[in-house]
Amino acid sequence: MIDTAYTELSSVLEGRLTRSKSELDQHGLSETWFPPTPPEAVAYPETTAEVSEIMKICHAHGIPVTAFGAGTSLEGQTLATSGGLLVDFSRMNQVLRVNDADMDAVVQPGITREALNVELRNTGLMFPVDPGANASLGGMAMTRASGTTAVKYGTMKENVTGLEVVLADGKIIRTGSRARKSAAGYDLTSLFVGSEGTLGLITEMTVRLHGQPEAISAAVCSFEEIGPAVEAVIATIQVGLPMARIEFLDAESVHAVNLYSGANFPLKPHLFVEFHGSEATVAEQVEMFGEIVHDFGGSDFEWAAKSEDRTALWTMRHHAYWACLALRKGTKAVVTDICVPISKLAEAVEQTRADIAASPLHGPILGHVGDGNFHAILLVDPNDEAEIKEGKRLAHRMAERALALGGTITGEHGIGMGKKSLMPEEHGAAWDLMGQIKAAMDPKNILNPGKLVP
Amino acid sequence: MIDTAYTELSSVLEGRLTRSKSELDQHGLSETWFPPTPPEAVAYPETTAEVSEIMKICHAHGIPVTAFGAGTSLEGQTLATSGGLLVDFSRMNQVLRVNDADMDAVVQPGITREALNVELRNTGLMFPVDPGANASLGGMAMTRASGTTAVKYGTMKENVTGLEVVLADGKIIRTGSRARKSAAGYDLTSLFVGSEGTLGLITEMTVRLHGQPEAISAAVCSFEEIGPAVEAVIATIQVGLPMARIEFLDAESVHAVNLYSGANFPLKPHLFVEFHGSEATVAEQVEMFGEIVHDFGGSDFEWAAKSEDRTALWTMRHHAYWACLALRKGTKAVVTDICVPISKLAEAVEQTRADIAASPLHGPILGHVGDGNFHAILLVDPNDEAEIKEGKRLAHRMAERALALGGTITGEHGIGMGKKSLMPEEHGAAWDLMGQIKAAMDPKNILNPGKLVP
Repeated sequence: MIDTAYTELSSVLEGRLTRSKSELDQHGLSETWFPPTPPEAVAYPETTAEVSEIMKICHAHGIPVTAFGAGTSLEGQTLATSGGLLVDFSRMNQVLRVNDADMDAVVQPGITREALNVELRNTGLMFPVDPGANASLGGMAMTRASGTTAVKYGTMKENVTGLEVVLADGKIIRTGSRARKSAAGYDLTSLFVGSEGTLGLITEMTVRLHGQPEAISAAVCSFEEIGPAVEAVIATIQVGLPMARIEFLDAESVHAVNLYSGANFPLKPHLFVEFHGSEATVAEQVEMFGEIVHDFGGSDFEWAAKSEDRTALWTMRHHAYWACLALRKGTKAVVTDICVPISKLAEAVEQTRADIAASPLHGPILGHVGDGNFHAILLVDPNDEAEIKEGKRLAHRMAERALALGGTITGEHGIGMGKKSLMPEEHGAAWDLMGQIKAAMDPKNILNPGKLVP
Repeated sequence: MIDTAYTELSSVLEGRLTRSKSELDQHGLSETWFPPTPPEAVAYPETTAEVSEIMKICHAHGIPVTAFGAGTSLEGQTLATSGGLLVDFSRMNQVLRVNDADMDAVVQPGITREALNVELRNTGLMFPVDPGANASLGGMAMTRASGTTAVKYGTMKENVTGLEVVLADGKIIRTGSRARKSAAGYDLTSLFVGSEGTLGLITEMTVRLHGQPEAISAAVCSFEEIGPAVEAVIATIQVGLPMARIEFLDAESVHAVNLYSGANFPLKPHLFVEFHGSEATVAEQVEMFGEIVHDFGGSDFEWAAKSEDRTALWTMRHHAYWACLALRKGTKAVVTDICVPISKLAEAVEQTRADIAASPLHGPILGHVGDGNFHAILLVDPNDEAEIKEGKRLAHRMAERALALGGTITGEHGIGMGKKSLMPEEHGAAWDLMGQIKAAMDPKNILNPGKLVP
């Protein structure tokens, strides 16, 4: 029966369905510690109608369907853990429309954020959400991604305003409108954003664009201890200084970045910051931030004045994950992602640092501290059960700490397989409600089964 | 059986259940043209536990439950159209916690926005969402309200970060966290915000607070025609000027305000604006806005420099709805609420003005044009079927125009009974999905039955 289904799918896709081992294997990898999990087949649709046909066939045959964008998620969201079909959206990667006047764009889900920004280059507009990896927009929507610029521009939650979605049975719906606000019924856009492919497949999305800033300043400063570095961030947020990016790296992360990117930062906790605005407002912001850093005993700024220097700086930051992995050969990461109220940030970072110091594992800490969000990259040998167990223990302690402080187990990576066991602790009975919604929208449980919901 | 249920409810509520005709009648009114619809009983719970008990009893007996905040909604959301119990949240009106450092507050749903701001007066913080009426926070969340300040501070969607909700069967859940962002599963907070009491009853909410601005400037200017007034707004939004309020009133609205509030504005289209920020940024914004207004042929500003003058100005604006009603004795309103992409705003306003000019009805136009959102207050004799029909015809044309322009049938009032027939046009198959979600969460259809969903 499954073979019949694949024959039907191949016919709908005019051959753009593969079962070749190398392509299956390639789609079965993940960025983190999960074992390779190849799907049974990979589809490359080019239109919404094809995605709808795919879902109708898979729905009829009860075949699990997992969506795949750029494969950069960190909690195993794209792994076909129940087998079945993986839908690779890389051929649906077009910008369909840019509305300069309303500052929005309609795009297909397979476009990456870097490709979108290349297309926008001459419009004076940009899509600012930046999780580091060159993720696809669809994948970013599905994990409610954010990253370095969310402190100013918001996450995918704030920047996706409408969707076209193919539901489990192949039905095509549209959510949202192009108006700046609406009170017309349930906010289905927000329901799909962050649903990790468990409620439907995105085939088109409207995203908010922002003006390219007139002036940009980026800088780096260091502190003697973690505490004052984080306290400086808290003070910055509390005075309402509109930072475009404010990133924390502990001394071990800095060490990794130095080795990997040939930098030469002092081995101390650092803040990497960026300001966007008019020349005048950026100058004002820089001055105010300088005073705060000084108050907390930070170093003078090292400026990345030129555009190339800024690119180099943020490339270093974006490569920090791989820099951490490179600290030890053959290593994989248990990646953590807690987010706490800003007033609890220093406490959360310092206790995490102490926890890791007391463990045999290495775990550089870095993060988007302007949102109260940070990661420990817990380095483990993927073949060493004891190390994986220890990594998970530390990750679990971090998550429990986040919850005790009023925060969340994941600021931006999502749940996938990696954090599912923590969902009852964060949500209690609300997790059951998520399961009820999933069951109502996907009664055959074919959309990314095994992820996110009970 | 129903009597048994009311006996049980009365016992749980220790007598805070009434079936007195005067109280039922009072809870059966609405602000607009809907006929009086008293419920069968009114409950005044004081705790979440009581709300949970209420829902358990009503669930067991299949009694419809309608939530009631301050009764200021405009689409009949609080009318108990299927009879049953109305839950009046006026006794659950406490501020439970203000977290200065994280700029959020935990409140009960019955508190009004004015009462909350009185409590916040000495904290340096404020809750800015301002729909005009002194609505309850719970009601504002349930209709995804916004109003004059949404252009800067967002709507209830952006300002509610977590909820405690009692579900149809009495189960109590919590959504969201106090972190600034989260990727932990479905965004249930956003699902409940805007659900108009059809999915659950809010018993506690966490809302975002904002710093009280250091400087505020408010001003009024007039234009000879509607077109340039709206074009000035579009230009203001497109250059990214962060207006705190930017309100449009057509000549007929101005006439109504003059009569009702004893003002003396020239009978021309007006913009009422307000700027928030530091002294320096407000001065910069005022100057930039002045240039734009000048470019579009607007008058010089009339400043409301003193705090009392500003209060008087916004009170006039807030009373504009009643001012319009007062234009004609015994009148009620068919209130419209379309919202379009900002680039389509002039077109939408001018065509609406022409439509109304060609109709026997009066319909002043005013609105939160910085969001692309405006209202025509279509004045009808509630006892004249023909007028109501004509009002509905005009409203329908406006809604269709909004959809044709990529907008929405309601920017902030919600659906209730008044706009339900337009939902298929706006949402197509997505409306059915809303119905499926409703059925999954409230299979007995006891939560505000007949509203919003199919």
